[in-house]
Amino acid sequence: MVQYQAQRLDRTFGALSDPTRRAILERLGRGRATVSELAEPFGISLTGMKKHLQVLEDAGLVSTEKVGRTRWCAVGPQDLDEVQQWIVGYRLMLEERLDRLGELLEDMKGQES
Amino acid sequence: MVQYQAQRLDRTFGALSDPTRRAILERLGRGRATVSELAEPFGISLTGMKKHLQVLEDAGLVSTEKVGRTRWCAVGPQDLDEVQQWIVGYRLMLEERLDRLGELLEDMKGQES
Repeated sequence: MVQYQAQRLDRTFGALSDPTRRAILERLGRGRATVSELAEPFGISLTGMKKHLQVLEDAGLVSTEKVGRTRWCAVGPQDLDEVQQWIVGYRLMLEERLDRLGELLEDMKGQES
Repeated sequence: MVQYQAQRLDRTFGALSDPTRRAILERLGRGRATVSELAEPFGISLTGMKKHLQVLEDAGLVSTEKVGRTRWCAVGPQDLDEVQQWIVGYRLMLEERLDRLGELLEDMKGQES
């Protein structure tokens, strides 16, 4: 279970590490689009776009559906909840360390006076 | 400026896409450590650990300092603030879309009755 979650985090962070893939998500966040509609404004080939979409789909960040000869892309099903939890947990740990450091410095000041 | 920020997001998300690198950050969050101290519990070579640390250092997630013959590693200076902002912004956009969809469904129900 933990192993599975770690792999999902790997895939999600990896998918988000590319500016074109983040821009695709931002575009799809405004509404679904076909692969051609996505490829055009980014100025990349259909093959290049399909590779990016595959990475996003493997991470669960994009879902695609073929209707006739057209493949439609949309956001989801993953909503970045786990990724946000990891980041918030890490930042809390950093803050707690800073708090403890602050207390330590206060104690040291107290001993000086 | 925007370009620079995008590259920083690329590097940060890329650095976080590996389970060993996330575990290194969690370990350093509890306090600084030498490269050898980090390598041992993970069961990886010093060379392997140095490669992971380089990726984390390039993303600003880890800083290292050489004292005599020992290299100390610590968290920072980056605190994942930008990454969290991107994720929160994306999730807000998804939520707003769901809200609009909900309103649309309510309107449709209203027209039916």
